[in-house]
Amino acid sequence: MFTLYHHPFSPSSRFVRLIIAEYGADFQEELVNPWERPQKLLLLNAAGTVPVLVENDGPALCGPGPILEYLDETRGYAVADRRLMPDHPEARAETRRLVEWALGKFDREVVGHMVRERIYKQAMPRSAGGGEPDSSALRVARANIHHHMKYFGYLVASRRWLSGDRLSFADFALAAELSCADYLGEVPWASEDNVKNWYARMKSRPSMRPMLSEKILGMPASQTYADLDF
Amino acid sequence: MFTLYHHPFSPSSRFVRLIIAEYGADFQEELVNPWERPQKLLLLNAAGTVPVLVENDGPALCGPGPILEYLDETRGYAVADRRLMPDHPEARAETRRLVEWALGKFDREVVGHMVRERIYKQAMPRSAGGGEPDSSALRVARANIHHHMKYFGYLVASRRWLSGDRLSFADFALAAELSCADYLGEVPWASEDNVKNWYARMKSRPSMRPMLSEKILGMPASQTYADLDF
Repeated sequence: MFTLYHHPFSPSSRFVRLIIAEYGADFQEELVNPWERPQKLLLLNAAGTVPVLVENDGPALCGPGPILEYLDETRGYAVADRRLMPDHPEARAETRRLVEWALGKFDREVVGHMVRERIYKQAMPRSAGGGEPDSSALRVARANIHHHMKYFGYLVASRRWLSGDRLSFADFALAAELSCADYLGEVPWASEDNVKNWYARMKSRPSMRPMLSEKILGMPASQTYADLDF
Repeated sequence: MFTLYHHPFSPSSRFVRLIIAEYGADFQEELVNPWERPQKLLLLNAAGTVPVLVENDGPALCGPGPILEYLDETRGYAVADRRLMPDHPEARAETRRLVEWALGKFDREVVGHMVRERIYKQAMPRSAGGGEPDSSALRVARANIHHHMKYFGYLVASRRWLSGDRLSFADFALAAELSCADYLGEVPWASEDNVKNWYARMKSRPSMRPMLSEKILGMPASQTYADLDF
């Protein structure tokens, strides 16, 4: 049994929840507010970040990259053709590049700002940096998202899925990030039909269902968030 | 034959040069100033970052994570017990965690600032953000380095190498980052004997030699940089 230390609106944590479900595994959850740097989290992960995954009484697996590789190395054989990592080293490199693009670059330049300014800061005390969103951070994120959407649109127009002909970890990395931005109504769907159609396919997967019914107290989801036919 | 697109003082590029040498492969180099966003780089890697590795006329392998996995997947069997990725999934997760710590967190919080402010900005035109170093960025980096050194000291005091009993990719990731900071005289060696002794072992590896004789025009290396007995 896995234990997942996570926050419901941490995009990397959402990615791990999705891929655990896709690999047919199960987990119990420990909700964590990473900005509080709780002792139980720091003892598992000195970086103080989520997600952290623990299998039974094994060591802590820290961060989405090490977790996805561990999951594939220990469960990949069992899921057979539903495996989310391609076989060929070149295709694997492309999948890993796009996982890092989504959870790294896209998160740093776009979604990370949106989640921090509009969700985390509502829950943080002022002494820890909480309070009103920083409008200049949001402005930058909202300008940046168009460049990323255009690139994702280019990719899914030329391939069946984000990193190639088969569904891969890259699709779930991007879906996890977009789902957080979409909750906040921050995704300009109208400008990129190809991304919208790809995301509609992702939304219809059973692994995404639990996420689409999640709510933040006092902050309803955007109209598109749970709608499979948005 | 590999072609490596890199910058001599990009820590992630240094990491790739080190592990290619450790895996007994060879490469021809294409020097790139990533801040110029040259067309030949953007065509290979839409993120515009180095390192990018290309094998013969294969696709571009972008970024240190995808590159290390590719190298291990295609060459790991051949290097046998000099392989830099452990066998067990749990040990692999620990190696990957520390590679990400070094090239990600440590670079973002410390070495990336030092390299950008003191090396890249000397070569960048003012219109592209070049010029005098930003002293507040350097101050933050110099404060942060102590926390990281303490953590690295704790790790190498309790293990033979950074991520466990065997030399791994994690050691080269950290050595690559520290080598850039050390060139600038920015590593407080005196405060962490264990890290210093570990780095002395790393420095004596043939793969590190070419790097230790590199120089930036008009900016000599620190006294400790090339000294094996610093």
